[in-house]
Amino acid sequence: MKFTLPSLLLILLCAPPARHFAQAADPLMGFTEAASAQQRALEATLDATVKPANLDEWMKYMTARPHHVGSPYDKKVVDFMAEKFRSWGYRVDVERFDVLFPTPKLRKLELIAPTRYVAMLQEPPVEGDPATAQTDEALPPYNAFSIDGDVRAELVFVNYGVPADYEELEKRGIDVRGKIVIAKYQGSWRGIKPKVAAEKGAIGCILYSDPKDDGYYQGETYPEGAFKNEYGVQRGAVMDLPSQPGDPLTPGYGATEDAERLDREDAPGLTEIPVLPISYHDAQPLLEALGGPVAPTGWRGALPITYRIGPGPAEVHLQLEFNWELAPAYDVIATLEGSEFPDEWVIRGNHHDAWVHGANDPISGMVAVMEEARAVSELVRQGWRPKRTIKYAAWGAEEPGLLGSTEWVETHAAELTEKAVAYINTDATGRGFLNAGGSHTLEKFFGEITTDVVDPQTGVTVFARAAAESEVNDGKRPKHFQLSALGSGSDYSPFFQHLGIASFNMGFGGESNGGEYHTMYDSYDHYKRFKDPDFSYGAALVKVAGRTTLRLANADVLPFEFTRFSTTIEGYVGEVIKLSETLREQTARENRLIREGAYRLAADPTQPFVAPAVKEEVPYLNFAPVQNGLRRVQELADRYDPAAAPTLSPSRREQLNRLFIDLERQLTREEGLPRRPWFVHHIYAPGYYTGYGVKTLPGVREAIEQRDFTEAQEQIDKLGEVLRAYAEQMERVTQLATAR
Amino acid sequence: MKFTLPSLLLILLCAPPARHFAQAADPLMGFTEAASAQQRALEATLDATVKPANLDEWMKYMTARPHHVGSPYDKKVVDFMAEKFRSWGYRVDVERFDVLFPTPKLRKLELIAPTRYVAMLQEPPVEGDPATAQTDEALPPYNAFSIDGDVRAELVFVNYGVPADYEELEKRGIDVRGKIVIAKYQGSWRGIKPKVAAEKGAIGCILYSDPKDDGYYQGETYPEGAFKNEYGVQRGAVMDLPSQPGDPLTPGYGATEDAERLDREDAPGLTEIPVLPISYHDAQPLLEALGGPVAPTGWRGALPITYRIGPGPAEVHLQLEFNWELAPAYDVIATLEGSEFPDEWVIRGNHHDAWVHGANDPISGMVAVMEEARAVSELVRQGWRPKRTIKYAAWGAEEPGLLGSTEWVETHAAELTEKAVAYINTDATGRGFLNAGGSHTLEKFFGEITTDVVDPQTGVTVFARAAAESEVNDGKRPKHFQLSALGSGSDYSPFFQHLGIASFNMGFGGESNGGEYHTMYDSYDHYKRFKDPDFSYGAALVKVAGRTTLRLANADVLPFEFTRFSTTIEGYVGEVIKLSETLREQTARENRLIREGAYRLAADPTQPFVAPAVKEEVPYLNFAPVQNGLRRVQELADRYDPAAAPTLSPSRREQLNRLFIDLERQLTREEGLPRRPWFVHHIYAPGYYTGYGVKTLPGVREAIEQRDFTEAQEQIDKLGEVLRAYAEQMERVTQLATAR
Repeated sequence: MKFTLPSLLLILLCAPPARHFAQAADPLMGFTEAASAQQRALEATLDATVKPANLDEWMKYMTARPHHVGSPYDKKVVDFMAEKFRSWGYRVDVERFDVLFPTPKLRKLELIAPTRYVAMLQEPPVEGDPATAQTDEALPPYNAFSIDGDVRAELVFVNYGVPADYEELEKRGIDVRGKIVIAKYQGSWRGIKPKVAAEKGAIGCILYSDPKDDGYYQGETYPEGAFKNEYGVQRGAVMDLPSQPGDPLTPGYGATEDAERLDREDAPGLTEIPVLPISYHDAQPLLEALGGPVAPTGWRGALPITYRIGPGPAEVHLQLEFNWELAPAYDVIATLEGSEFPDEWVIRGNHHDAWVHGANDPISGMVAVMEEARAVSELVRQGWRPKRTIKYAAWGAEEPGLLGSTEWVETHAAELTEKAVAYINTDATGRGFLNAGGSHTLEKFFGEITTDVVDPQTGVTVFARAAAESEVNDGKRPKHFQLSALGSGSDYSPFFQHLGIASFNMGFGGESNGGEYHTMYDSYDHYKRFKDPDFSYGAALVKVAGRTTLRLANADVLPFEFTRFSTTIEGYVGEVIKLSETLREQTARENRLIREGAYRLAADPTQPFVAPAVKEEVPYLNFAPVQNGLRRVQELADRYDPAAAPTLSPSRREQLNRLFIDLERQLTREEGLPRRPWFVHHIYAPGYYTGYGVKTLPGVREAIEQRDFTEAQEQIDKLGEVLRAYAEQMERVTQLATAR
Repeated sequence: MKFTLPSLLLILLCAPPARHFAQAADPLMGFTEAASAQQRALEATLDATVKPANLDEWMKYMTARPHHVGSPYDKKVVDFMAEKFRSWGYRVDVERFDVLFPTPKLRKLELIAPTRYVAMLQEPPVEGDPATAQTDEALPPYNAFSIDGDVRAELVFVNYGVPADYEELEKRGIDVRGKIVIAKYQGSWRGIKPKVAAEKGAIGCILYSDPKDDGYYQGETYPEGAFKNEYGVQRGAVMDLPSQPGDPLTPGYGATEDAERLDREDAPGLTEIPVLPISYHDAQPLLEALGGPVAPTGWRGALPITYRIGPGPAEVHLQLEFNWELAPAYDVIATLEGSEFPDEWVIRGNHHDAWVHGANDPISGMVAVMEEARAVSELVRQGWRPKRTIKYAAWGAEEPGLLGSTEWVETHAAELTEKAVAYINTDATGRGFLNAGGSHTLEKFFGEITTDVVDPQTGVTVFARAAAESEVNDGKRPKHFQLSALGSGSDYSPFFQHLGIASFNMGFGGESNGGEYHTMYDSYDHYKRFKDPDFSYGAALVKVAGRTTLRLANADVLPFEFTRFSTTIEGYVGEVIKLSETLREQTARENRLIREGAYRLAADPTQPFVAPAVKEEVPYLNFAPVQNGLRRVQELADRYDPAAAPTLSPSRREQLNRLFIDLERQLTREEGLPRRPWFVHHIYAPGYYTGYGVKTLPGVREAIEQRDFTEAQEQIDKLGEVLRAYAEQMERVTQLATAR
């Protein structure tokens, strides 16, 4: 059956409005009333077109064999997708970048004292899941961009291996210089752990997944349940992602065929020390062999042992060699040209490369992109065309460090800066509650979508469900859907933080937890049993992301506005001011306790204990530049009325759209953040010591956290400038929208 | 060498005052300046007399064999102590009470489905500790005052088995009616667990010690370390202690030879269902066999399993039979008659019966009492006599439910009410920080002592060390030593909460944790290795408790005062008002969430979930009676000046002392607390659903917690009366002290 648009519109307008849903009569942000009605009808068709069975079928095909970067099956997946997009009528470009992609040549880990144990470093097949037996094509467990190394030393357990953990070690007089550290996964992005370990003087780093975090402590293990069995190992990149993602041999520019490449020795971002991930089966003998003090409560996992810190008597030998070769990263770009503004691009992407089969990560999100593209192609077949150009992207080589997207962004930087309206990202997705992060100038716009899409399990809107979860579990009663701030960990990072393009990242989760992440066990069977068995949430994601794409592509005026941004930034500014105050009080208190000898008196004299050293007192910082910038933003925030804008003259609307395309970029500065010039966004960045985890107002916040108060003041001044420049753009928008 | 008092005084006065210590010139509370100097000299002699080696020698003897209630060696221990006290010149009475003391006849626990496992229920000997091989005389693991029973049913894991845990079960639609529950030790006093389980309809109860709480998760296990090995089982009473301790056959009166005894069937306080404690070795197969939902995070322990709730498929068979016999509880009372006020008694006690060898519990405290008595006898030999009578007590049958002390208190209630100035209790003690609870009218008095005794490890005062610990770990900077409120769990309970006699309970700890409590492994060897190897803290306890005894016995005016009491009660009143407000807000919020369906929307629809029922809204209570009572107490609090009192005329002082002896009793009411008339104190009581854990202002607080708002208002009115009556006594004190 084929609906034409007018007939669909009729059906929609005659249907009684569903309770709790936005009224069909409310115009959508960025649309005139008439255009809103058309847009809603279009979305109704989209919804009716989405077929969960497609997601299932494609996931089954695309996860049939391991398909990491450079593997034969990754090329098959690329060809499959390109062929699909072409069959749906898209113009398809497959762009190839040749990127550094190390794979293991030799992996050896053994306990050499006081007893001997040779780590198996393998994930055996499990019964009932044939994919887990495909070991010939699979990459064994390793950390990409670990350097080669051959080290022997005493072992030290460092908890999650973040800076705070080393402070605990210092209190106990434990130094990791010349030692090999073993750190639990989680608590930070994995690449932070060897980075901090090397800064502290360790010569090797072992990562393992404690059963407390995603093994039997959380639930039954695979194949009985979704969690990590004793052999599961999380693979993953350990490059210095918060400094710069992408190909280390072509930093800041595209890794095209004829690009100039650095020698590997000069390439930034590789680890300083060898790093290897292991299972808890392999970790237990090592941890059990440790002596020294019992680990603090928060450090202890769920293995049936007394967690001790060491150093020694456990000694380990870690030997790693890699094939340091280039591999092809294929980006599939499917384009649907815009009818009115072909040079305004809405980009919707997900990566396709996996560590092994990657059913959840990344294929669950990738098939949602494909189904969205297919559904949109159906609209096109029915005679519709977007006003703006839509580009669907399937990125390669995300897993080793966002290489495919970063190289593409770096290659097309000038054109993207000119044309990109927004980038909409997904990655692994599951069952449960909608999570989304992004530019707060688009929060209100996105909020409308969250009250238009229905949760598959409960029949209320996805906003209502997320709000209930927030209220029951966090005690917060959100009035509207709130976007989280974006850090890193998926392909939005180059768009958002390197070019200042407004971005989203979204997915469902919370009811599909497991321990399969980056293991051999992230398979189709695992996904079907434990994530989103009927792909109803995959379909819901198509509806949410599809609306985001289509509304941005069709809006009369791009649906940006300022009040949510203003409120959000006000919150962040409050946080950093509070942070400096708290740090000042804490430092004063700790220094007093040190001088009074309280730490010594509170410590057990029979245990090793080193009282912390007195720290520099925290000066009062001049936050006025930021506060004045913020005040200007606040003053202007509600002068622009997004509801009135769609009725402006076409030329005014075009000028407004141009200002909005440049809006997010006002929050960037060419010189970037201290010590990481690639990251130019001054509101959102991945934390230098958290990795994926976001730091908002990163220049200011991290300088305070790192106790560099001179830099903190410099960054406050800079952030003040950023906010003032942003306010000037706000003023241009307001003037244009209100001028007579 | 023998010091005479004047020569000692000379030495003391010539010595430069130690830094951080109270100046020798400051008069002690309750003493004139001259008497203070004498008292300090006396205490210096006491300190010089204390010999840690005595504690060691006596502990070794008294723990040489198991000495539970009714055992041959318990009688030997009693005779040994009586002989010691006599040899030091005390008048010694050994009072015998014949109390119900069940011992195991048959203990059987087996998993009967889906697999079979027969629990071993034994604690094997460990290498290097011969005491642990004395199984012939030892009581095997059991819970005293469990009823006989023979039950088979599906198993349910109920976390700590407290009321809040059953709320979690209800949310998951899990009912324990007709089931056998398995609960972890800790989280409440053990007797609460079967009490709540029976209230909820369970037919049997298994208790086990999870390794997370005091096993390998905390540190190395015995004999390598101090914590509980896989076979260790905590024995213990499960009678309804918060309703009434003591012999169940003679409730409220002494279990003397010819006392009328109830039939066992009519005796209060026995459990409703059979209860058995087991080791984690025995618990693991049972827990592993459970299905059903994964337990909430806070419920999970450190066994290498996925903790599930059940019910079933695990089914267990629990069969218990006991010898329901009378056993002798021997109280050894050693008396040193006062020279001026023989009818004013200061009582200092500790129990002597153990579950097995009981090196830590109770002998570590018992030997401190003995050494104090010996040291005091040395003072007597040098010609000194206390003004008031001192009684050293070694209680029998504490372990099964404070039987020895309770029967003694009930037997001598009239005389004690007339004569007892205060009761000073100790029990197990170890290494680290001074902990003390007690009557807040004596907090200031006790605070002076804590700045006069030196911490053995650091050389600062025991207050300075406890304060440093509090500041570093809790962020609280105490200006002075704070007494905690007393709940139950040791022999102060009958004195304090049944007769309203001002009381203390004290000991050292925090650096001597272990898992030996009530197991076969609480041995002399364990104590020497892991608690207080050189008995320096035992000696410090002699100095602290000894000063408490001697100052109370010698004071010119008993060192009570009101300001600390007033501040403390103000805090409690604030807490219960806040409790009612928080409960009101919580209830309103929860009811709103229920009505809005938020709990249902936040829950995973694929998991069993029962939304909580709407609760009665919390009415506004009239706290004015308590607030007005408190205001009167506050008005009067600083009108009495304890520093001026010692200079009053002898007859005034005698009258004042009489008022002070009756002071704590003003906080009691003959009719007692709701549903537990034995407990007559209206400020401090053990929690009806926490057991040992204190509930202050118990009538009001527990009525609010139990949502009985009619009773809450009644108890507020009653507490108002109590405070007004107390204020009248304060007024009598003030008038007497200030009248011209």
